[in-house]
This record gives sequence, structure tokens and C-alpha cells, in this order.
Amino acid sequence: MGHEVQLEDLYQKQFDPVLSIDERLSYYQENYDSSKVSPEVEKLTNTDALVLIFPTWWFGFPAILKGWFDRVWAPTIAYDHANDYGPIRPKLNNLKKTFVVTTLGAPWWVDCIILRRPVKRILRFALLGACAKKCKLKFLSFYKCESVNSVRIDKQLHKIEDELTKFFGNNSNLSAPGDGEKACRP
Amino acid sequence: MGHEVQLEDLYQKQFDPVLSIDERLSYYQENYDSSKVSPEVEKLTNTDALVLIFPTWWFGFPAILKGWFDRVWAPTIAYDHANDYGPIRPKLNNLKKTFVVTTLGAPWWVDCIILRRPVKRILRFALLGACAKKCKLKFLSFYKCESVNSVRIDKQLHKIEDELTKFFGNNSNLSAPGDGEKACRP
Repeated sequence: MGHEVQLEDLYQKQFDPVLSIDERLSYYQENYDSSKVSPEVEKLTNTDALVLIFPTWWFGFPAILKGWFDRVWAPTIAYDHANDYGPIRPKLNNLKKTFVVTTLGAPWWVDCIILRRPVKRILRFALLGACAKKCKLKFLSFYKCESVNSVRIDKQLHKIEDELTKFFGNNSNLSAPGDGEKACRP
Repeated sequence: MGHEVQLEDLYQKQFDPVLSIDERLSYYQENYDSSKVSPEVEKLTNTDALVLIFPTWWFGFPAILKGWFDRVWAPTIAYDHANDYGPIRPKLNNLKKTFVVTTLGAPWWVDCIILRRPVKRILRFALLGACAKKCKLKFLSFYKCESVNSVRIDKQLHKIEDELTKFFGNNSNLSAPGDGEKACRP
């Protein structure tokens, strides 16, 4: 069985993360202008599971990934505005699982105690909480990644594989070589 | 007296927010490759006060502004790496005051109680806390901005002017027409 995996490398495809004027002008119109991001929209709306692999920079998504949310997680695609601008209405009803692998230079306590895990919180409560209410989230943070060594990298790769298997089941073919490794490089 | 104000409109100048491969490769070398962002670097390192005006999208900076932090608030410019990758060393010693005006579609309690004010927290504890330790921060959030009316906008514009004067003093010429107004449009 397994899963059909589609790789989306925003850097490789030179994704432009800047929400355009046309997109912004159409944001509160009947139809959001998604013409410039239609391949990304199709992938997002058809997927039932997301695996996000990225470095955390300044306790946020890298700009290229932030822009993927800004432009693709948009009205009529990821959610609908409420008539009275109350809570938005979810549209990513296919999306059941999101698995995150991220790296941080900071130690765990700065992220958890001082910053309050902003990336995890935003994913859980804002993005998934608003657009895909039933989506489960597994979030793996690797801290102090500027001073890794091969022992720590190996340990973290095994952890990623274990957690992927737990989250997606034994038939998962998501732990493709390279994906996890990339995530641990500082 | 007053202040000399330099306007930096990232959209107008079509700023590219994507940290490039060369920038990333040089991130941990002796000299970060800032050749593609040298005008922005010069402005940042020479300023003693920042006024940031932006909409908050998904409880974060718009991608274009996130990328300004990713690319310009970089090693050798905004901070220096510590030798042991411990806490980074601040370099924006000129920067004494940062004033933020931002808008959110969400009500205050979602930002404050559920999300824990991630943008303010990241600015205060991560960006300024690491790069400009002595910088004072004033942060104005305008909530539920998707359903504003002219009364609320006027009230908020007056608040911005008042707070700007309090923060920068009576001789401030920072409350230039247009700047505040832009910030309140949904």
C-alpha cells in the first residue's frame, strides 16, 4: 500500500513568496486570484497529509515558506471568510495529518519558555485550527542545531523515522533517504 | 530639530525576501555575503529608530518583511555568532527605539491568550533581544481590522499619533500623513 508522495521544494522551483497586489486586491472579493499559484493550490487541496521540513529562522518560517502560507492558504482555497468577518470557515477538509521536522539554533527552553513555541502554536491554532480542524499535528523540533555532530544527527534521523512510522503507519514510505538528513543540517 | 526619516517600502522596491544559496553558504563563514542587500544593510546599521508598519498575516510578518529579517538581520551585520554557538552577540548598538504598528483580522484574545502575541514576542526577545539589547519597543496592534469603520480608523490614527509623540518626543515628524492611515486598511 503505502502513500503516493509528491515532493515540493520551494527553493528548487524558485517559488515567489510575495503576495502580489492582484492577490491582495482580490483577497476580499468573491474569487481570490490564485492564477499565479494554481499548481500549489492543486497540490494543497488534494493532499491528505503534509510533511513540512524547514529550518526555523528567527522563531518563524523562512520567508519562502511563510509566503506559501500567505499566498496559497488563502480565501476560497484553504478557508472561506465568514459573512461577518467572524471565525473563518475551514476548507482543507481532506487534510488529516501534518508532520513537521524543523531545526533551531536556540536551546529548547528559549523556544518553549521565552517564545512559547510560536511556529508550533501558529500551525496548530491558526493555520490548521482555522483551515483543517480535524488535522492531527506531530511536531519535531531539533534544538541547538548549529553545534551538531554525527552522533546527534544519527539519533535525530532515527527519531524522525520512528515518529514517521508511528504517525503514518508501518507501510509508510515517507522516510525517503535524504529528506530527514536535509532537515538536520544547520 | 526633529528626525531625519527614510522611508523603506519593501513592496515598492520589489525586495526579494528569499535568503539566497550564496547567503546561506556564507552564513557561518567569516564574512556573510550581504552584497545583494547592501542598501538595506546600510540603512539598518545607521538608524537609531525603526518604525515598522505591516499587516500581521497568519500571526506572523508578511513574507516580504520576514525575508528582510532573514537576509538583513544577519551575522556580521545585526549580530555576531558566539564562538561556541552560544547566545549571539548584538551588533545593532545604534538602534535605540522600535515602534510597531500592525493590523490583525483576529480579536485581541486570540492573539494574546491562544497565540501569546508571537510577533511582539519574537521582536522583543529574539530580534531586538539578541541584536539590539538596549532598544525600547512600543507595539500597537489593531485587532478585528477586517470590519473597521471610519470612526474606528480615526480613533486608531489618533492613538498612533499620540503614542508616536510619547515615544519619540514632541519634535517628532514621524507621524507623516499616509503612514498611519495605510496601516489601518484591512
